[in-house]
Formats: sequence, structure tokens, C-alpha cells
Amino acid sequence: MFRTAELGRKVSRTEFEQLTEPLRTELLELQQRLLGADFPVIVLFAGVDGAGKSESINLINEWMDPRWIVTRAYGPASDEERERPEFWRYWRDLPPCGRVGLFLSSWYSRPFRDRAVGHADEAAFDKALERVAAFERTLADDGALILKFWMHLGKEAQRQRFKALEKDPLQSWRVTPADWENWGRYDAFIAAAERLLQRTSVGYAPWQIVEGQDHRYRSLTILTTLRDAIRRHLEERAVRRVVGHAVALAEEEAAPADPRNPSPMDTDAPGHAPLMAASGEVDRLLSEVRRGLPSILDRLPTDLVLDKETYAVRLAHEQGRLNLLMREARTRQVSTVLVFEGWDAAGKGGAIRRLTQALDARDYQVIPVAAPSDEEKAHHYLWRFWRHLSRAGRVLIFDRSWYGRVLVERVEGFAQPREWRRAYAEIRDFEEQLVEHGIVLAKFWMHITRDEQLSRFKARETIPYKRWKLTSEDWRNREKWDQYEDAINDMIERTSTSRLPWTLVEAGDKHHARVKVLTTVCEALEARLGVHINNEPPRKTHADKEKSKKKEG
Amino acid sequence: MFRTAELGRKVSRTEFEQLTEPLRTELLELQQRLLGADFPVIVLFAGVDGAGKSESINLINEWMDPRWIVTRAYGPASDEERERPEFWRYWRDLPPCGRVGLFLSSWYSRPFRDRAVGHADEAAFDKALERVAAFERTLADDGALILKFWMHLGKEAQRQRFKALEKDPLQSWRVTPADWENWGRYDAFIAAAERLLQRTSVGYAPWQIVEGQDHRYRSLTILTTLRDAIRRHLEERAVRRVVGHAVALAEEEAAPADPRNPSPMDTDAPGHAPLMAASGEVDRLLSEVRRGLPSILDRLPTDLVLDKETYAVRLAHEQGRLNLLMREARTRQVSTVLVFEGWDAAGKGGAIRRLTQALDARDYQVIPVAAPSDEEKAHHYLWRFWRHLSRAGRVLIFDRSWYGRVLVERVEGFAQPREWRRAYAEIRDFEEQLVEHGIVLAKFWMHITRDEQLSRFKARETIPYKRWKLTSEDWRNREKWDQYEDAINDMIERTSTSRLPWTLVEAGDKHHARVKVLTTVCEALEARLGVHINNEPPRKTHADKEKSKKKEG
Repeated sequence: MFRTAELGRKVSRTEFEQLTEPLRTELLELQQRLLGADFPVIVLFAGVDGAGKSESINLINEWMDPRWIVTRAYGPASDEERERPEFWRYWRDLPPCGRVGLFLSSWYSRPFRDRAVGHADEAAFDKALERVAAFERTLADDGALILKFWMHLGKEAQRQRFKALEKDPLQSWRVTPADWENWGRYDAFIAAAERLLQRTSVGYAPWQIVEGQDHRYRSLTILTTLRDAIRRHLEERAVRRVVGHAVALAEEEAAPADPRNPSPMDTDAPGHAPLMAASGEVDRLLSEVRRGLPSILDRLPTDLVLDKETYAVRLAHEQGRLNLLMREARTRQVSTVLVFEGWDAAGKGGAIRRLTQALDARDYQVIPVAAPSDEEKAHHYLWRFWRHLSRAGRVLIFDRSWYGRVLVERVEGFAQPREWRRAYAEIRDFEEQLVEHGIVLAKFWMHITRDEQLSRFKARETIPYKRWKLTSEDWRNREKWDQYEDAINDMIERTSTSRLPWTLVEAGDKHHARVKVLTTVCEALEARLGVHINNEPPRKTHADKEKSKKKEG
Repeated sequence: MFRTAELGRKVSRTEFEQLTEPLRTELLELQQRLLGADFPVIVLFAGVDGAGKSESINLINEWMDPRWIVTRAYGPASDEERERPEFWRYWRDLPPCGRVGLFLSSWYSRPFRDRAVGHADEAAFDKALERVAAFERTLADDGALILKFWMHLGKEAQRQRFKALEKDPLQSWRVTPADWENWGRYDAFIAAAERLLQRTSVGYAPWQIVEGQDHRYRSLTILTTLRDAIRRHLEERAVRRVVGHAVALAEEEAAPADPRNPSPMDTDAPGHAPLMAASGEVDRLLSEVRRGLPSILDRLPTDLVLDKETYAVRLAHEQGRLNLLMREARTRQVSTVLVFEGWDAAGKGGAIRRLTQALDARDYQVIPVAAPSDEEKAHHYLWRFWRHLSRAGRVLIFDRSWYGRVLVERVEGFAQPREWRRAYAEIRDFEEQLVEHGIVLAKFWMHITRDEQLSRFKARETIPYKRWKLTSEDWRNREKWDQYEDAINDMIERTSTSRLPWTLVEAGDKHHARVKVLTTVCEALEARLGVHINNEPPRKTHADKEKSKKKEG
């Protein structure tokens, strides 16, 4: 694989100097155009030590406008980083649209090192690379231009490079004993590198192997590749915008596909997105077919009710149980992420407050998901959720969430069909990372019927301190009930797995709903912590009743 | 001081229930108005344990719209927090305009605890409180509404409260052995609390002592205080906007003050800002007086030149020296913050690149300061610089900086006179915190004459890959040369202290300028690290020349 990168290719000083000025000019002009573009550029440098990774990054910073470039390299994780899933540190450093991010090794470095030194077997290596590929895929799907340079040196060339550096008093610091130790493992490194390149070199994020020996040859290779890639991507995005409009028109009259086999929808790649997107008709048909069948939501019972007295006792009991469990979780540094979605007026806020009443204000944070800020808009839609992830042992409650992508954004057309369709897989991948990191995740859909919503809206209008909750948007959303119902059914079908289950909450009765939410959270915590708190509701004594009344106040 | 908070005041359940609905309605309505306001609300809860701090925070979250409230409490600092100045964690949690931030103890808790348990003497306590006061002052000056509640319980009442909690199986976890230990120190706590309240209760951030025994009395006190304060502040800000316009008009015809004694300007408090702000005429006069006298900038020699050969040798030498020092700093976790300001085309970028060439891309970050994002605009102007502070051992280079407040924002009128005048003190305080934390700080003003700038602008127009650097804004800025000169002189006079020195760089000759910057950074590092790297330029051998040529390429 690396044969062609050991040819000893060179560029003479004269040639290099002749090319410098036109190339710099082109790069700077492209960067100006890039500033107004709707995508970021992500450039990754990995490879053999001494093959010019840092030098290349310095050169890009020198030749282009450094104001719009961020450079990131990673040492050992900080405790704030260790307390979140591994990719949190990469998400938080992603450049916004119009900017260039230069990354040194970064998301490849741990899997690669683990494999090269033998800490991970091939299966573990492949699994880690799959995660990396999914990460790059989701960025590319969102429009990012991803370039990856593998800087190569032959074994002997690396030895000579180290020797040369060691002789130069100003450069000798660059060579450490660890470098020589790694040199001893050269063959194992190369074997791991080959697998890495094979598994993660894909159309939307290709690896380019760069012969690193001659700094002029290397620099020209990287800079012209970068130039061509930015230019091509700018053009492709422009074409895509035009095609996108055409496809949107075509969708209106497209032929229906198999309505009961929606799975291909969430695996469309950017390469064939325009072809796959022509399925507005499919959605409509699917929706009609479903209207005839009972959906997941339709099957929910609507008669689950808790009388006031039982509610008071159960509430106090579950809150006490939750409190004990959360303190245990805090001690053991286990975090919890709770997601609340539901119809307007289904009682998300009330359920959340019954949870937070049982918690210490030090330990939880409610994140109300409203319109994104301009910084958030300039990133992948998941970026703003990654940035909220809290430190270990905390409870993070999302009042609405990333599922907005497949609900409101789908129904209102803020996201293109190809965008919300691939979101199911992106969301599963995101949540998988939370769960793998040991975080307790629970997702609630608060369900009420259309009639129940109407009577709640009307009630809200009469209570002064609840009136603010009701906006004209609520009424507008209500008109799109059927479309939302389809979106909700799809969401639950595609994002409820045994590890990432949705809890459907029959919220027609608020008492029942609140207790069900509390109980579900407690059970998830018990399962995660391997402890069991007495689950039997206490007998109703007079003292109990008084106590629960107090807590209600 | 706390006598009046031990009166055992109570509110009956009936009274409380009667007041609930109107009060909630008022709070929610105010919160709606607040969303469109140009200031944040910062509410701090401190005081005796068991007096209802967490409960009050929960209640506010319950009665108001929790979507626009952030709640923050602080445990031990994370390593990312320890690697920055103490206030970094508070800056990053500040709510944006229109939102409410609820803080548990937070910036008071370390000074208070240190004093109460005897780790700090009175002088150290006072110093810590001064820092706190300066922090709150700068937020209040920026428009923030700050409310501080000291929740009080008498010694016996606290004991009874703990006992009662311990008896309740659902609440007993709230009482820890540490609580009882603290109870034993009750008198020392109260003594420290009295001093704390006296020193930090000021008009713009008053403490309100709240009797904590009865939860209904306590809740009503806090919520009505909050309601009244938000209402009053909304009105005051509205009035201030009107008055602000009037003052701006008045400034045009105001009488001059003593032109050689500008010091009162940077101590105006928000209370009398409109009166102090009428000094547009003062500025003009001052500027004329100065025009007759040589200013700091005028006194800079313009004939400092390094010939190409000496430059090449000195550059290579200083870069090598810098590299050694920075690696030592990295090892010892000493961070460096470098600030570059200067005339357009004075060579900031070139000087920065000569620095970064000597560094490892893993260790530095260049922060180009452009227009703020909407999240940044919704915060204090220093917020966006605090958020950039890097982890320990890194080099952070600001290409333009917080000094924009007293340069471009002053000259262009983006900041009101009272805003940029108080910025001198705010900036000194910010930089003091960096230096106290052990960070090496160097600030460079890159100076060229007006004629030199003109010839550089003209040269830029002819070099294709430099043309993008020259914008119409550069030409516009150039027309305001005199106003900028005044602003620069003021800036240097007021923000150059022995601990926070400005380095004026005679940048008419780029070679001289780059070497001076490198040497200054090296010297600052040597002083901080207590090491000395051979400072003599090496003799010019042929090999040296070749080497430095290579580095230039």
C-alpha cells in the first residue's frame, strides 16, 4: 500500500519557488469564497512520525488566512473529557461553516495506537474504526468537506530523519525516546495503518497517502490537493443546491416505492441522495396505509388513571426512591440523560418538575431546546446537543431534543427529506455512544389524544399563569396533527431499540403520567446501578398523606 | 446584623395560597418582557445550611418558565477549571441577555469557607472579596441585574432543622456529618458572613438577608423581591436608553474638564454614569493638547533596522531559544497569553507566524478576533475572551483582542464613552487574574508611521496573494488616524503597569519588529520560569546562514 509513497519524489527549490505565488493566491481566493459557504473543511493529518504532520499544519496556517483556521491536537483526555463519551472532545472542536479545521491524528489516534501496540485485537480495532467512519459520515452528510492525509516515511527514511533532527541543536527536541521506541515497532504500525486506511477511506472522506521525505514535494501535494478539493466541493455544493430544488419539484410527481419497507430511507448516502429523495409520494402513501391500521400510538390505552390519593402516596414514594438512586448514581459518577418529547400540552413540564423536585439543584440541568443560535446553526445539528453533555454523575433533562430533526423539522420542511431520513441512524449512533459510556438514557413520548389536547388548550386560556404557555404556534401545530402522527410513529419505529428504548407515556391522566415517568427513571437507574429500592407503595397512613401533601405544596 | 432574620416570621398556608396565583402570573409576565431585554438576571443564593437555598431555586424553576433559567452549583474544580483562573468557571456559566441565572454560593463559596475555617486571614478574605466585588461590578456596569439572597437560620433553628430532616426517611440524606461539623463552627461562620455581607453589599448588587425558617415566608420574600427587582430594572434600563440619547446630544456641547487629569474617567459607576459621560468635548480638547506634545507613540524611534543577514541569524537564534523555553513551560504547565494590537499593515500576522514557526502545532492557538457571534453579543464583552482561555501549558495568541473595546469600539462609537472608559479598569482586572494564575502575559503594540502605512497599503495592492488583506475598511480606518492615536495613547497610559506591561514595537522595519517580539516573549518566559537561555547571538558562520535561509523558506 505504501510502495508508491517511498519513491523518493522531490521538487527542486526553483520549481517550488515558481509555484509558490500562484498557489498561495489561489488558496487565499478560495478561502475567501469558502467564508460564505454552507460547509466546513475538516483536514486530518496522521501518519509516520517525522513525516511532516506539524510542519504541514504550520505551512497551511502560513499560506492561508489563519484567522479562519482552527488547529487542534489532542493529548491525554482531561477529567471533563473522560466524564463524557470519547467523541465529545472532537465534537466541541469542530469548525463552523466557512472555516477550516486542521486536526492532528485526533479521532484516529487512540484506536490506531491501541492496535499498533497490541492493546486491541482486530475486532476491537474494526469496531473503533466503524465509530470513526460513522462520525465522518454524519459530518460529510451534513455537507462537510473532509480530507485526510496519511504522511508516510519508509523505515529507513524515518531513521535518517530522526538522526538528522538529533544532530540539529534547534530541532533535536523533536526526537524523543518514545519516537525511537515507536520506530522499533515500525512494521506493526504499518500493518495497523494499512487496515485503518482500507477501512476508513471512503468517497466522502478519502485518505491521501503523502510521501513525506521531501518537504517541498510533500507541501505541494498537500496544498494542491487541498486547493482542488475546496474548489470542487464549492462547485458541487452549488450544483447540489440547484439539483435540490429540481428534486423537490420532482418529488411532487414521483412514483411510489414499496410503502411497507421504509428501511432504505435511512441509509441513503450523499452520493445518491438526490435520487433517493424523490419520495414525497411514498410518505403520503405510507401515511394513508397507516391511517387504516392501528399505529403504535393508537394502541396506547387512554383510560389509565390514578386517583388523587393514590397519586399523592405513589408520587412521594417514587420521589424518595428516585432521590436515593440519584444520590447513589452521583456517588458512583453515573450520569443520566432524560429526553422528553410529546404533544403540546401533554404535560412534559409538569413531569419534569416532579422529577426535579426529588433532586438536588446541584445535580441536574434542564435544557429547553429552542431555536438554535447562529453558532449552533453553523454546525451539524447534533453539535448543540453534544456541547450540553454534562460532567459525570449529573442529570441532564432535555425538554424537547435532537428528535426535533425528525419531528418539527420534518413536518415543517426545515430539514430536507434526505436530511431527516438519515437522522434516525445518526441519532441511534449518538445515543449508542451515551449508553456505551455508561450513561443512563431514558426517552419519553408524552401522549394525549387530539380531543384531550383541545380541552387542555381551552383550559390554559382561562388560567392566567398558564396562558403564556399557549401560543399561536401551538394551534398551528395542532392543524398538522396527522403529519406529526406519521413522524412520531416513524421515529419510534426507527429509534426504539432494546438499548435505547422509548417509553410511551399515556398522559391523558397527569397523575398516571408523572408516576410512570418517575417509575421508569427509577427502574432504569436500578438496572444500571444493580441496586433495588423497595418498590412496594407504602400503606396509606395518615402521616403519609400529610407528608405527600407537604411535598406537593 | 442577623437579629432581624431571627424573628420567627411566618406566613399562613391560607395567606400563601391566596398570594400564589397573582404572584406567579406577575413573574411569568415579567419573564416574557425580560426575554426581549438587553440584560441578564443573576440571582445568587448563599447562607446557612438548611435555610432553604436549594428549595428556593427549585421553587423559582417551578413558578417561572424553566426554559429561560439556568441553575448552577459548583463542586470541586475540574482539572480544566484548575488550569485557568478561578473565575473562568463562573464566566462560562453566565446567562445571556434575557435569561435568569440561579447560582448556589459560587464565587462566594471559596473565600467564605477559607475564612470561616480559618485558612485565610482577614486581609486575604478582604482581597478575595474585592475580586468578587470587581466581578459583580463589571457585570452590573454591563447592565446585569444582580440579586443576592443570604438565607439565614439562628443557631438553634439550624439544629432543629437538621434534627427534623434526620427524622424524615426521605430527607435524612440532606444532613451529613459535615453539616454537623459546620454547625459546631456556627459562630465563626456568622462572623465571616457579617464581614462578607458588609464588604459586598453595594447598590448594584445588594444582599438581601432572608429569614429561612418558615418556607412560606422565605419563598414569598424571595419571589416578591425578584419580581420587584426585575420590574424596576426593566424600567430603569428603558429610562437609561432615553437618557443615553439625551446625554449623547449633550456631550456635543458640554464644558471641558481638566484635560490632563483623565483618571476619574475610568471610575464612573453606573449610578452616575449619565453625569460623567458628558465629555466628548474633553476628549477633543485633550486630543488637541496632546497634538502639541510628543506622545508615547511619537517618541518611538523609527530608524531601528536589522539588515537581512543579521536578521536571519537572530531569527533562527531567537526561535530556537523560544522553542526551548516553551517546551520547559509546557512541561511545567505554564501558559502564555500573547496579545497583538497595532496599526493595519504593521505586521502583526508576520510577527505571529515567526512565533508559531518555533512552536509545536499541538501547543498553540491563534485567536483572530473578528465580529462577535450572537451568543457573544448576548454576554459581557469580556465573556468571549474568557471562553477562549486555554488549558495549562499552552500558548494563546490573540490577533487583536479585548483592547478592541478601547480602540475600534471607542473610535467608531460602538461602545458608549462610559463603557469604554470603565473598560480600562475591567481589562486590568482581567489581566491581573491571568498573571496571578501564573500565566505569562505579553502585549504588543506594533507601530508604524502614517506614511509607512500608506506605502505598505500601496505595495499590498500589487502582490496578488496579499491583496485580500487590504479592504476598504483599512482605508476608512486610516482616515481616523488621529482619533486612533488618541485612543492608543490612552490605552497604553492606562493599561501598561509593571505587572502588565505593553511592549511598543517599532515596526517600520519588519526584521527588527519580529526579532523584538521574539526576544520579548523569551525574556518574559525566562523571568517566569527562572531559567536563562544563552542570549548572545551566535557568530555568523556559513552554516548558520544556510540554516536560517532554510527556516525562512
